[in-house]
Amino acid sequence: MTKFGKDPRPIVEIFCQAGQEALAASQAERVEAIYIGSMNPEEFTGESNIASQIAEALGLTGIPALRIETASSAGAAALQAGFQAIASGYYRRVLVLGGEKMTHLSTSATTRILAEVIDRQERQCGATMPALAAMITEKYRQKFRLSQSRLENMLCSVALKNHLNGSRNSLAQFQKAITRDAYLASKFVATPLRLYDCAPITDGAAALVLTSEKTDVRLAGIGQGTGPLSLRERDIFTSFPATRIAAARAYQMAETSPQGIDFAEVHDAFTPFEIITSEDLGFFPPGKGGEAAVEGKTALEGPLPINPSGGLKARGHPVGASGLAQVVEVTKRLRGQTRAKREFKRGLAQSTGGLGTNNFVTILERTDSRAVQSPAPPFLPPMSPAVPKKASSPAAMSDEGEIETFTILYVTPDGFLPPVALALIRDRNGRLLMAQGEDNVQLKIGREVYLRRMDEVYLFTVKSQLQKVQESLKRLLRRGAASPSKEESPAEKKL
Amino acid sequence: MTKFGKDPRPIVEIFCQAGQEALAASQAERVEAIYIGSMNPEEFTGESNIASQIAEALGLTGIPALRIETASSAGAAALQAGFQAIASGYYRRVLVLGGEKMTHLSTSATTRILAEVIDRQERQCGATMPALAAMITEKYRQKFRLSQSRLENMLCSVALKNHLNGSRNSLAQFQKAITRDAYLASKFVATPLRLYDCAPITDGAAALVLTSEKTDVRLAGIGQGTGPLSLRERDIFTSFPATRIAAARAYQMAETSPQGIDFAEVHDAFTPFEIITSEDLGFFPPGKGGEAAVEGKTALEGPLPINPSGGLKARGHPVGASGLAQVVEVTKRLRGQTRAKREFKRGLAQSTGGLGTNNFVTILERTDSRAVQSPAPPFLPPMSPAVPKKASSPAAMSDEGEIETFTILYVTPDGFLPPVALALIRDRNGRLLMAQGEDNVQLKIGREVYLRRMDEVYLFTVKSQLQKVQESLKRLLRRGAASPSKEESPAEKKL
Repeated sequence: MTKFGKDPRPIVEIFCQAGQEALAASQAERVEAIYIGSMNPEEFTGESNIASQIAEALGLTGIPALRIETASSAGAAALQAGFQAIASGYYRRVLVLGGEKMTHLSTSATTRILAEVIDRQERQCGATMPALAAMITEKYRQKFRLSQSRLENMLCSVALKNHLNGSRNSLAQFQKAITRDAYLASKFVATPLRLYDCAPITDGAAALVLTSEKTDVRLAGIGQGTGPLSLRERDIFTSFPATRIAAARAYQMAETSPQGIDFAEVHDAFTPFEIITSEDLGFFPPGKGGEAAVEGKTALEGPLPINPSGGLKARGHPVGASGLAQVVEVTKRLRGQTRAKREFKRGLAQSTGGLGTNNFVTILERTDSRAVQSPAPPFLPPMSPAVPKKASSPAAMSDEGEIETFTILYVTPDGFLPPVALALIRDRNGRLLMAQGEDNVQLKIGREVYLRRMDEVYLFTVKSQLQKVQESLKRLLRRGAASPSKEESPAEKKL
Repeated sequence: MTKFGKDPRPIVEIFCQAGQEALAASQAERVEAIYIGSMNPEEFTGESNIASQIAEALGLTGIPALRIETASSAGAAALQAGFQAIASGYYRRVLVLGGEKMTHLSTSATTRILAEVIDRQERQCGATMPALAAMITEKYRQKFRLSQSRLENMLCSVALKNHLNGSRNSLAQFQKAITRDAYLASKFVATPLRLYDCAPITDGAAALVLTSEKTDVRLAGIGQGTGPLSLRERDIFTSFPATRIAAARAYQMAETSPQGIDFAEVHDAFTPFEIITSEDLGFFPPGKGGEAAVEGKTALEGPLPINPSGGLKARGHPVGASGLAQVVEVTKRLRGQTRAKREFKRGLAQSTGGLGTNNFVTILERTDSRAVQSPAPPFLPPMSPAVPKKASSPAAMSDEGEIETFTILYVTPDGFLPPVALALIRDRNGRLLMAQGEDNVQLKIGREVYLRRMDEVYLFTVKSQLQKVQESLKRLLRRGAASPSKEESPAEKKL
């Protein structure tokens, strides 16, 4: 791994440092192929054909090289593809790389590029990754009946823990512990998420050599799952089914369970995602992940350390590198190459692509950790449905609905003046749609709103108490007097 | 395969049509994962996270989906990754997709995006893919001592053949045969390449289902190789070593040789590349591929049909789709699903990423084509060198050199006024560098030039006869009179 943070070198050089160090550290410095994870070097750096470039810069021209991309989990995807190539017998030893260069651009440019992973309709309303993460967090708060201060305490616990862990990691972007006061003083990016709830923008690369030979650490299980892109296509907001699918396969392949995991590196691009992920991985029951963090269960000295490296939050988040950097961190810890004196037998890495749309779970273990090394039984993953269900399109909406979840966005993409109120609205027909608030007062889950469309964007206004009373009166009157066949016009409704 | 050409639908819909048709055509409509090849949907369409998007649009949310990229061979790369996943036993059945959407942008914008695969220094001089292909063609002409009209005849033969073949392919972008006169009347893009030597800009997608079960066609061999990005790092200009590496592995894995191939689809992004590739694949000796095309050996009715589908030239070239579309075409032909009555047993597909920097060779065969189906022996590909050689950087140049190869570029990228003279210059120290001509007269391989640097770009001027005589005189005089320790300044040289 390179030192994560601001790195002035060109992206190919950053990749090369990680690659050369991994080759030098492996027992034989030769590989048959290169598998590279990178999310968007084209738009971040203007470089295309990155796989060929890296092969050439490493002095390995001739050797097959390819690039894999699954949004922000690209590093984990490269590992999976490299693993499959080795497991097939096609190659015996491959170099896996993950990297990204992002800090040279403005925050708004980076935010815009990162937001391309989001559904187009939701993007058009001004939704960014932090905005959608915030809306998921608000939904989580409501579902598990957490007060605002209780939620704040949970998120703060995760941030403090990961910064403390990062202070012990010499390759982390932030190597300073932060205080509760500093957390509380940090500005809102998108309510209820503050700056200290969001992983930073980072340059960096990670690398490892995968081999078919037996070494001290083995890849015991790996799984991948996908989930809906948009919020409006989701049935569930407080869990990422893509993680659950990936975890099921990884546990089965490794013949283990959440109880068999000693520690984990998870994708805490936002502090609430560490909490949700710790539940999706089966470490804690739904709604209990935050409490576990507050109680120190996931601290470095706790029973189940989560993100002992500092996580994306403190180690930094060069998107294409993160999924692989986690695996590098897990490997180092299994080998005892960290400052911690504790011995670990089995670790897990979980990586998230987009808003939980393309997730991976990888389980690594020391090869001396089992008395008998029985080969894993063949895993039979679920097949897709024979008749795939078509994703629904954002059809015509009714002009009223209620707030499913919301956020006030303070760091906005280019073209949007902060603050922007965003809400997922459930209309009278039960359909969901992202909409921008005409003002940002009185937002609360369940509040009734009026909806109107302007070009490609839906706008909402929260109904006042007076409006609600007027509507009830009108309905009563109509029931008594008007003919039932006569439809009320939207204009009348808003009187 | 979708109908290649101009397709007004969003990229995800184009992918979906190919995917749905492949699923419907396969015996069981279920798959465990989706492998997607696409070169640059981010910059062509503004869409990121394309793998998750496609899984969702296909109604296959939950199923693992990932995107592979190796520049213009991405479709073949996705096939290779999907093959390795099946061969490893990790999956039993996967959907492989390749696609791109390009026609909605201006030609200059598309040219710019495609040119990102080129080495940065060469790009800064105004080099485009056609420009570099043209320079390779000029070098080929010189190496094999072809007159301009002989070369023209060869390129024309390839263009005419592929357009004729395309006229029989209902999914091809161009379904009209062209005449020799039309070819000769078409404008130069970059001398000696005309419009009819270059594959068009295209929208389209291709798909297939890979399964571990036995079917009528099997993937018998697949190989990948890489080569230097820039022209200046090459030792050889008239062959693509990446194709030779890929072919060696594919032949060995399929236990066959060039003689065992009945027909081939090759990457004719430029007509000369079909000729060079037919040599790299071992079908014809170096320098003989053009003659073979002129003599009709590679025609549909010839002994070794090349690009019977029309190739990239006539079928069209949606970059991420082409490598997979070739394999779809080969499969159809092996199954007898084309208009041709001839029976084929074994076909080959060759795909090129960038300027021959990331190439694939795939061999497919009918499973009834062998008496005994012996399993292929384990292939042991060459390992990378233990101490990788570092790629050299474009160091300081001497201020004189000679033309290694050149072109006059008529279709230029944004910011360059046509025509632009480009030449690869070999300086006095034997190093190569791309340079822009201050005028475009007297260009010929071997001509002596002066070099000067302006910002990031090198400029060259061809020395006149008079200048050469003056220089010889000065050298003679100096040898007689001046002290040998005194260095001549560059300024003096140019007097």
